[in-house]
Amino acid sequence: MSATGGLSKRADAVSNRARLLVVAQAVFAEAGLDLEVNDVASRAQLGVGTLYRHFGSREDLLRAIVMQTVEDTQAQIRQAIQPYADDPRAALQALISAGLWVQQQYRPLFATMRDQRLTKLFDSAQREAMLTLVLEPARWVIERGIQAGVFREDLDHNLAAATIIGAITGVFDLLGKSCLLDELEQRLSRLLWTMFTK
Amino acid sequence: MSATGGLSKRADAVSNRARLLVVAQAVFAEAGLDLEVNDVASRAQLGVGTLYRHFGSREDLLRAIVMQTVEDTQAQIRQAIQPYADDPRAALQALISAGLWVQQQYRPLFATMRDQRLTKLFDSAQREAMLTLVLEPARWVIERGIQAGVFREDLDHNLAAATIIGAITGVFDLLGKSCLLDELEQRLSRLLWTMFTK
Repeated sequence: MSATGGLSKRADAVSNRARLLVVAQAVFAEAGLDLEVNDVASRAQLGVGTLYRHFGSREDLLRAIVMQTVEDTQAQIRQAIQPYADDPRAALQALISAGLWVQQQYRPLFATMRDQRLTKLFDSAQREAMLTLVLEPARWVIERGIQAGVFREDLDHNLAAATIIGAITGVFDLLGKSCLLDELEQRLSRLLWTMFTK
Repeated sequence: MSATGGLSKRADAVSNRARLLVVAQAVFAEAGLDLEVNDVASRAQLGVGTLYRHFGSREDLLRAIVMQTVEDTQAQIRQAIQPYADDPRAALQALISAGLWVQQQYRPLFATMRDQRLTKLFDSAQREAMLTLVLEPARWVIERGIQAGVFREDLDHNLAAATIIGAITGVFDLLGKSCLLDELEQRLSRLLWTMFTK
């Protein structure tokens, strides 16, 4: 086999894996833990054998879906806040805006991800790694705000980050049907701002 | 039939319904939407016919489980904060303490309750009624705090209440494994206090 053939085969493998994962996320959002491997493979127009070459078992596929979702949402939020390293107010607002958007976009996935039958598939190191990833963008906003001398130095980084993420989720769940997201973003930014500033 | 016989039959009917609902909550916490009506009836040591006399269909039973869970948790939190009508700091701390405890106690139920296949069973008036019930204890704490002249008058009651509930859930989900609940309660109370006070 030529070097080019080898490369394109690897590229195919990468794109098959990525395609399977995108389809699997969609199936998982609809079917939750009832997700069927055959359904994922056929919707991706690939054989079940190909699926099992990339994901050794149904459990492996479920783990990969969850990890990919956590990575995707973290990357989206990271990208939204990145430009505001020196502007804590804009960073907090961008974090809340991206967080509300991610809630809307991934809502069914997030709901299923809380299912204990799913969380049991992860060992404590994997769970810890995901929590760190989830907290990271909010921690970054808190840390930059303290460095900028705008946020209180005595803030507990993890607690403040978990509070922001929880507030975004709670406000979306409880008020998201009755208010526009833009309006919630403005109001929640103002409220949380008072908690972190000196 | 004597009046006493009628009363005791009604009492039986009430206790059968309550027993079915307690068992159904437990089955639902384990099996989620895969809950089987036969399983609930046999674990309650009652016939399926009795179950269907109290809950017309599987969907009715699922709706009753969710409503009961919302009412139970609201009542628990209400009871915890009630003694502190004139002490906003103690009321906020009692709210957070009861909220964290409720998270721990009902975690699997709450996880399943976010499933879209379940939320679809409720019409918008029922959903609105549940949201109002969920927000009520936190709204009460905010309103009492403002009346006491301790919390800022310009607080948006619903937004502040949703933020407290979200913060409790977020802190429990993200930090509940690595910290004691008592410690989280203290730290979160201090943090939220700064957001609401003048």
